[in-house]
Amino acid sequence: MLTKIMKPKSIAVIGASTKQHTIGSDIMKRLQEYKFNGAIYPVNPKGGIIEGLQAYTNVNEIPGEVDLAIIVVNAKFVLDTIDQCHQKGIKGLCIITAGFKETGEAGAQMEAELLAKVKQYGMRAVGPNCLGVVNTHPDVRMDGCFAESLPERGNIGFVSQSGALGGGILNILKDLNLGFAQFISIGNQADVNAETALEYWENEDDVEQILLYMESIQNPQNFRKLATKISKKKPILALKAGRSAAGASAASSHTGSLAGADKAANALLNQSGVIREYSLKNLFATAKVFATCPIPKGDRVAIITNSGGPGIMATDAICEYGMQMAKITDETKEKLRSFLPSAASVKNPIDMIASAPIEHYKQTLETVLADDNVDMVMVIYLPFLGLKDIDVARAVMEIKAQNPSKPIIGVFMTKNEFFTKLSDMDVNMPFFMYAEEAADGFNRLNQQRKWIQRPEGKIPTYRVDRQKAEAIISQALSENRAQLTTRESIDVLDAYGIRVCKSGFATNLEEVIQIGNSIGYPVVMKMTSKTTSHKTDVGGVRINIQNQEQLANEYNDLIDKLTQKGLIEGLEGVIIQEMVKGNREMVAGIATDPQYGPMMMFGLGGVFIEVMKDVTFRIAPLTDIDAREMIQSVKAYKLLQGARGTTPAQMEQIEETLLRLSQLVNDYPFIDELDINPLLISEKTGEAIAVDGRIKVRLEEAMKAFHSCSCGACAGCCH
Amino acid sequence: MLTKIMKPKSIAVIGASTKQHTIGSDIMKRLQEYKFNGAIYPVNPKGGIIEGLQAYTNVNEIPGEVDLAIIVVNAKFVLDTIDQCHQKGIKGLCIITAGFKETGEAGAQMEAELLAKVKQYGMRAVGPNCLGVVNTHPDVRMDGCFAESLPERGNIGFVSQSGALGGGILNILKDLNLGFAQFISIGNQADVNAETALEYWENEDDVEQILLYMESIQNPQNFRKLATKISKKKPILALKAGRSAAGASAASSHTGSLAGADKAANALLNQSGVIREYSLKNLFATAKVFATCPIPKGDRVAIITNSGGPGIMATDAICEYGMQMAKITDETKEKLRSFLPSAASVKNPIDMIASAPIEHYKQTLETVLADDNVDMVMVIYLPFLGLKDIDVARAVMEIKAQNPSKPIIGVFMTKNEFFTKLSDMDVNMPFFMYAEEAADGFNRLNQQRKWIQRPEGKIPTYRVDRQKAEAIISQALSENRAQLTTRESIDVLDAYGIRVCKSGFATNLEEVIQIGNSIGYPVVMKMTSKTTSHKTDVGGVRINIQNQEQLANEYNDLIDKLTQKGLIEGLEGVIIQEMVKGNREMVAGIATDPQYGPMMMFGLGGVFIEVMKDVTFRIAPLTDIDAREMIQSVKAYKLLQGARGTTPAQMEQIEETLLRLSQLVNDYPFIDELDINPLLISEKTGEAIAVDGRIKVRLEEAMKAFHSCSCGACAGCCH
Repeated sequence: MLTKIMKPKSIAVIGASTKQHTIGSDIMKRLQEYKFNGAIYPVNPKGGIIEGLQAYTNVNEIPGEVDLAIIVVNAKFVLDTIDQCHQKGIKGLCIITAGFKETGEAGAQMEAELLAKVKQYGMRAVGPNCLGVVNTHPDVRMDGCFAESLPERGNIGFVSQSGALGGGILNILKDLNLGFAQFISIGNQADVNAETALEYWENEDDVEQILLYMESIQNPQNFRKLATKISKKKPILALKAGRSAAGASAASSHTGSLAGADKAANALLNQSGVIREYSLKNLFATAKVFATCPIPKGDRVAIITNSGGPGIMATDAICEYGMQMAKITDETKEKLRSFLPSAASVKNPIDMIASAPIEHYKQTLETVLADDNVDMVMVIYLPFLGLKDIDVARAVMEIKAQNPSKPIIGVFMTKNEFFTKLSDMDVNMPFFMYAEEAADGFNRLNQQRKWIQRPEGKIPTYRVDRQKAEAIISQALSENRAQLTTRESIDVLDAYGIRVCKSGFATNLEEVIQIGNSIGYPVVMKMTSKTTSHKTDVGGVRINIQNQEQLANEYNDLIDKLTQKGLIEGLEGVIIQEMVKGNREMVAGIATDPQYGPMMMFGLGGVFIEVMKDVTFRIAPLTDIDAREMIQSVKAYKLLQGARGTTPAQMEQIEETLLRLSQLVNDYPFIDELDINPLLISEKTGEAIAVDGRIKVRLEEAMKAFHSCSCGACAGCCH
Repeated sequence: MLTKIMKPKSIAVIGASTKQHTIGSDIMKRLQEYKFNGAIYPVNPKGGIIEGLQAYTNVNEIPGEVDLAIIVVNAKFVLDTIDQCHQKGIKGLCIITAGFKETGEAGAQMEAELLAKVKQYGMRAVGPNCLGVVNTHPDVRMDGCFAESLPERGNIGFVSQSGALGGGILNILKDLNLGFAQFISIGNQADVNAETALEYWENEDDVEQILLYMESIQNPQNFRKLATKISKKKPILALKAGRSAAGASAASSHTGSLAGADKAANALLNQSGVIREYSLKNLFATAKVFATCPIPKGDRVAIITNSGGPGIMATDAICEYGMQMAKITDETKEKLRSFLPSAASVKNPIDMIASAPIEHYKQTLETVLADDNVDMVMVIYLPFLGLKDIDVARAVMEIKAQNPSKPIIGVFMTKNEFFTKLSDMDVNMPFFMYAEEAADGFNRLNQQRKWIQRPEGKIPTYRVDRQKAEAIISQALSENRAQLTTRESIDVLDAYGIRVCKSGFATNLEEVIQIGNSIGYPVVMKMTSKTTSHKTDVGGVRINIQNQEQLANEYNDLIDKLTQKGLIEGLEGVIIQEMVKGNREMVAGIATDPQYGPMMMFGLGGVFIEVMKDVTFRIAPLTDIDAREMIQSVKAYKLLQGARGTTPAQMEQIEETLLRLSQLVNDYPFIDELDINPLLISEKTGEAIAVDGRIKVRLEEAMKAFHSCSCGACAGCCH
């Protein structure tokens, strides 16, 4: 798929130049300096010798076959250049040239034409507006980038939406003991994007972990499908920028791409098993951990230190991540006591005290690694009394080499030059300066472990009454209403098998009484209106009605009040509902993000919804595992479990409610918003009952889907 | 106060040794290598030459005066050595020797004797069990530590409770462009502790910022008093370890000190203007910022970059801290446009694009600094096309030197060696690798700015009815009850002028009716019992009683139920209360931490209290500013402000409620727990009304205070 681009046997550099400090010159230099394992053909209309090679005036003059064309000509020549590449039979392009979508409408138009040609010719193209591509495999050795530094060899596949950032990263990787297997600067991602790279790298053994720097996700559903699968095989770490409103606005102006709401991005990454990092620093720190650490069997951490303070700080950090301090066995303790001085502490954190020689580091680490209660080990070193940091590191790595199955992270609070020395060595474990960084690393390993163990989940399909739901929606559409009434909303939920509270609709006193009596008291009465959506604000909700007489009084009073306020016109009638007793008000709903599509929400409802923000999001459709995790991930989960003597909620029934909602929006993607608030937990049965509901559709889209529009504009639609 | 220790003219090293890699040898070496500006006298019973100096067999043989004795002899000789020091007239001790409190009871006993001698002789002592002391001032040049590295000169005063950590830090400071003015390793802090150092450094101009590594706080009230004052003059940064339960347990075993609850520590540091850091990494990053940055005038940040991606990430980080992206004036934009290329973006973040030469960095920075809408500037550099990082840094520092009044932080995403180069230079601003680190720094500067501007606040004294409160408490004590009944609790609150809901106490039907009628309906009826504390669990709370008839029924029903359950014995009677309508249930209360003393709590009450944990703590007594900040710092503050059409709460009245509670616990420090839950916000008036209350005292302490004990043991007490 990307073989011609990432593993070319020959490269044409179209726009190669003799002028120093230009991209056309730098690319030629890097390809040669890094000793590309194939033919390099500079192309320049003026011909001549470029970086010691004969330049061709046109790509079609090149005698041999060309797999990849790296294009650095001026934007206005790019389309013609693609035609020429096609004539030459080239299938791989890397278009470094800028001046497309990122510059405005004219550029976007040109980019669309570019993409059309690429598709038409059966090519694949990286860019435009990018830094280039890298493959460090010894059989390829391609540095097709104009960054300052040559790439370091490593196990990372890196996709960067920011070219400049990619360049910056190439500069600092060596210091971190990290390197790339492959690197793709996707630029404007006209054709090749993060998803293409993910798919390509799934079975590339050389790429053992995937890092993404993204400002937008092009096709969220496709991304989810790919990432979910691939992240079980190799860790995917993502830095998604443009989180804040201001950041997102900077993101749009930067790459011309639409930035999706951050909570949607977060939900998507979470569901797909992608480890989200919030800073470059953390991205690389995590990459450093995955570069050499195996996935642990559990979350029990042992700490070995020669200094108490850092041991305490490490313990704090481990516990704050919810991991466990390993309970060292008595056998291990005894063994440790046999060689450590009496002032040492053999409880975890194991404090060998400041006098610990290298031999104690080795023996203690070996002993602790052999303990079945230990899944991961942090080794802390502070320099004392003549012990050399690099010697300790070598000793620890020696033990690590003999015990490859458990992750070990070194915390060496020592001079910067230690890390510079390390960067020239072949390390088999990560080293950091501070305990908190090591704890971060263990946390990420643990997260990946849990993800790998997480069942895939299923998207169930329930039998529902589509006919009924569609009849209700059609009715609203026929009246040109995007907003369904409360009654319609509740009925749609009911048609989808969601437990709504028993109710009936009445338009006069007689019906009111009849329905009230059939449901049984106490009941609630709620007005439904086509003009008033916030019912409580106009006194349209009456609760705890105890008997027929009170019901009649409340109804008459409502009619009087609405008449006085001039709101009687919009009144459709009143809903009489069973009064569900319970003080746990949850919320479930659907929101639509313009880029990510329908998103499910669940959490604490009622008056607290906006203040506490104890809600969680997932991209639809939900698997059963997604639904369960949603419920378990809000703080209010403790309330559902039954705090202080309340009835435990029926968790499976709540899960089903979310899954049925997910099916609903899957069937009718034009649903723009849906709120069940409150989704009340019955104190009696623990059932979650939809007490109030609001559904809003995107009118045009819905009409198209239902062929119910008479506007003429969509008369030509095909069904 | 600590002058003899920190600025000695002569030092005796008691326990100096010729044996290599021992503390007695290392201390001698360091003092000489760092060129101590006074006399050094090695003391060793064997005499001889130590590190080129004639050793004395006893401190009393030293011919000249001695200001400071650094003691490294075996623990068993320390007490005698102190006696000898006294004979010699030495007033300053630094006891490095370990083997005291940290080893158990015998050691603790010895440490108590040590302290008694120090007090008796009018000495001050650092340690025991410490690393030593440092003063880098050119007039002193004392390195009295046995760390690996010599100290770097700088503006930091550092107190470390962990000796080892102090040594580790000495090792890495140079790499961070940081240095100490003074350093005290307090060890077991028998005499000198963090508070002594704070007090001493208040007027030491050489110490411009204070860093604390603490595992415990010895005298929280004294710490608060000192820190509150000093933090307005110079920033105080603290790393308080032992946060987690496991961490705290490690802390106790490490230093033998009691670790207080972390939320109390957090409240204390917060109230005292101490900037709390959660990792060493962040501690030093912040110190680096305070080392060269002035306090800004506001929170508006401008970002200058040569690469879009990092600009976006920086924007994200700035916004997440709640700071503002500066709105660049049109004038500034025009000026920027006059020299930047057209592809550059002159909106904040200002993207000069990858081709930006040094001249653009200088011009852009100068222009942006001149903009009145800008308080702080982040300068981002990624290496492109031949531009050298260190040259850019020099240029930026040149502009900084001409504009000292606004903080500038550099983000240089470049090789490690850049930072090594920097560490040999005299820098006038901080440089980091990543944008997030710079954002952290700006956030800390902004926090310090807000603290300096924060009014000091007053602790008001309200007129209260102490007599009534004491009568109630005495009654409970006379019955040997630590737990006050609901009625008693509410009455105590009432005596302290806290708005409680109108109520009366009744023991029979006739009284019930009479009180109900006098309060007016609807009312609530609550049982009060000496044996049952969770009333709701036994059906002891009846709400929304509408009239006299219903009240009579409910009362009779309660009596029946309790009789059936065999609980009628404990029943004191029932409280009839006004029924306050409102659905905003807050909580206010007092908890006592064994180390930090009484702590005030405020936040969201009701069923959510334990699930949402939306509460905040402060150490008592509260100032008015503390009380206001408590109210504003919980998420539920939005509810109080009046979300979705609810009545705004009376903020000043809530503030007063907290202050009156603070006065209550100040008057009666034996109050162990106090809960007002709910503190209901009346929908009608916005008042906060104490609907239910529980007070528990520490019985012995209370009895002592009230002389009401008849146990004999406390008969001798003096009042």
